[in-house]
Amino acid sequence: MQNIQNDLFLRTVRGEMVERPPVWLMRQAGRILPEYNAIRKQLKGFKDLVSNPELSAEVTIQPVDILGVDVAILFSDILVIPEAMGLDYEMIEQKGPLFPRTIKNEQDIDQLLSGADAAQNLQYVYDSIDKTLVGLGGRVPLIGFAGAPWTLFAYMIEGSGSKTFSKAKKFLYQEPELSHRLLTKITNTVIAYLNLKISHGVHLVQVFDSWASSLSREQYLEFEMPYLNRICSEVKGAPITLFAKGAWNCMEELAETGASALGLDWNMSAAWARSQVGEKIILQGNMDPCQLYSSPNEVEAATVSMLQDFGRGHIANLGHGVYPDTPIDAVHAFVQTVKNYRYPQD
Amino acid sequence: MQNIQNDLFLRTVRGEMVERPPVWLMRQAGRILPEYNAIRKQLKGFKDLVSNPELSAEVTIQPVDILGVDVAILFSDILVIPEAMGLDYEMIEQKGPLFPRTIKNEQDIDQLLSGADAAQNLQYVYDSIDKTLVGLGGRVPLIGFAGAPWTLFAYMIEGSGSKTFSKAKKFLYQEPELSHRLLTKITNTVIAYLNLKISHGVHLVQVFDSWASSLSREQYLEFEMPYLNRICSEVKGAPITLFAKGAWNCMEELAETGASALGLDWNMSAAWARSQVGEKIILQGNMDPCQLYSSPNEVEAATVSMLQDFGRGHIANLGHGVYPDTPIDAVHAFVQTVKNYRYPQD
Repeated sequence: MQNIQNDLFLRTVRGEMVERPPVWLMRQAGRILPEYNAIRKQLKGFKDLVSNPELSAEVTIQPVDILGVDVAILFSDILVIPEAMGLDYEMIEQKGPLFPRTIKNEQDIDQLLSGADAAQNLQYVYDSIDKTLVGLGGRVPLIGFAGAPWTLFAYMIEGSGSKTFSKAKKFLYQEPELSHRLLTKITNTVIAYLNLKISHGVHLVQVFDSWASSLSREQYLEFEMPYLNRICSEVKGAPITLFAKGAWNCMEELAETGASALGLDWNMSAAWARSQVGEKIILQGNMDPCQLYSSPNEVEAATVSMLQDFGRGHIANLGHGVYPDTPIDAVHAFVQTVKNYRYPQD
Repeated sequence: MQNIQNDLFLRTVRGEMVERPPVWLMRQAGRILPEYNAIRKQLKGFKDLVSNPELSAEVTIQPVDILGVDVAILFSDILVIPEAMGLDYEMIEQKGPLFPRTIKNEQDIDQLLSGADAAQNLQYVYDSIDKTLVGLGGRVPLIGFAGAPWTLFAYMIEGSGSKTFSKAKKFLYQEPELSHRLLTKITNTVIAYLNLKISHGVHLVQVFDSWASSLSREQYLEFEMPYLNRICSEVKGAPITLFAKGAWNCMEELAETGASALGLDWNMSAAWARSQVGEKIILQGNMDPCQLYSSPNEVEAATVSMLQDFGRGHIANLGHGVYPDTPIDAVHAFVQTVKNYRYPQD
């Protein structure tokens, strides 16, 4: 493995004593950067960028150069996994993903590829990792990510985003065995995919469970936790961060998966989260992304307040992906405030 | 006040010893009933039904006749309040509400009507109450409802539904004083409106904070709790239920408002909620609406399990409005299971 010049993120997730928390933003490679928009405009659609190793590597590196964040995250999409399994999707501008075909029955599930057979279809991702690592030249580590099984399942059944994901949840209630069969195929693919990413050199992985909050605690324990546990034990060679948005009622279980870090949304206070998960695990988050609509001075004050609330064992980030219309000055203020911060000497 | 034949709901919210919990469903007057759809089809739009006292009374009473629920809730819409304040909206089929004009600045806020001046514009609602009470003939009590200040504010700034309500939250961050001014005008209207509803004879009121979860705890304490406290102290003559969806991190504060009951979404377990709010307040909820996609036998088992989990001091309901495509057999199974249930003798 390449020597990493700024290894603050890696030292933090290993639990070492660090001088300040590392900082990055979910969706840092994206529409907040004019340089991203310039590249995006050259292409017809979002998926053309995702599937282009050269350009996705370039936009992955942009926030490292422009914002000075402590880690890069590979520009990609969680829905490449359903596609690699055989379920194509389109990304509709201003609307979001749309699956022309969805999973409706046993036959649909049986036809899906799974595990290494599916993961090998994502060669463009591994090529992008190779190019990104060359471009980064060891300046900062690289995160690879995947969608969590329930979140991918939800899209594959529902066919699009949804306020309720009631179709996907209906499937859980009406077809629990088929649901487990599909979740198993998805999980096998996530594991193969993340392990391939790690073999190509990503230093860390993050799993996004964007729709965690749509499930009751009982359903989350039945239909998601076993699969997150499998991912945490079968993905080898890189620390794992789990970000289960809105899963406030399963924090203890999430902390017991073996993940190195847990992402928090902005509804969870640092003190509350610590009371749920104990002292060992690293916490990532969790400023309200809308705080970045306030003035740079207010962003600075809110950032310092967040850093003080979390104390050590923290990765500074937002509680959700940064919104596309966020003023870049506020983003700089957020990043710079963290970088200028030093933990008080004990 | 009319004598109420089935006063189980009223006895429950007064904290009396009852034989079983009362039962109703959020959105029980609506698309789950073929009889509702028959009336709805005669009209051009949803708002034609809301503003028609005769027909809105009729659909309000339908679930009492057809489902045998223990309470009626006046068929209406939370967005009649912005409209009465001077901000018109359209209800777009399959999409939701749309405000052609939104609140952008001080002048927009100053132009809005507020309090009694706004509430008097909703005569069709009070007429609907009068007609509903005649039609019910005292069989069950009647709930009147309103949107909570933050939720109404969110629509008035955002102009439509949203996954993030980032425009509305941006306004909170950028214009805190104007935000409080608008929230005050909305609150004055909600209070006048609910008091007028009570003077027309509704027996209970419920306040819906549908977008509570979009705010951090800090913002909720600053921009919503003071207004909910005002509503609970200034609305007189009927017990109040607060349903703040997703406000898990403010349950203690919600329990201290003076509300008689708190609605719970399906992410909150009965035991957890009790641990937050103590023994005095009544809890309402909270079956996952998607549970009603399972078989009637499974619905029955899940309902009994919920009733046992909550024990006394409970109003049986879902954790969210019933979804339009819910099989009517499952709804009957839910209602009948509660009605057949008896609390164990202590």
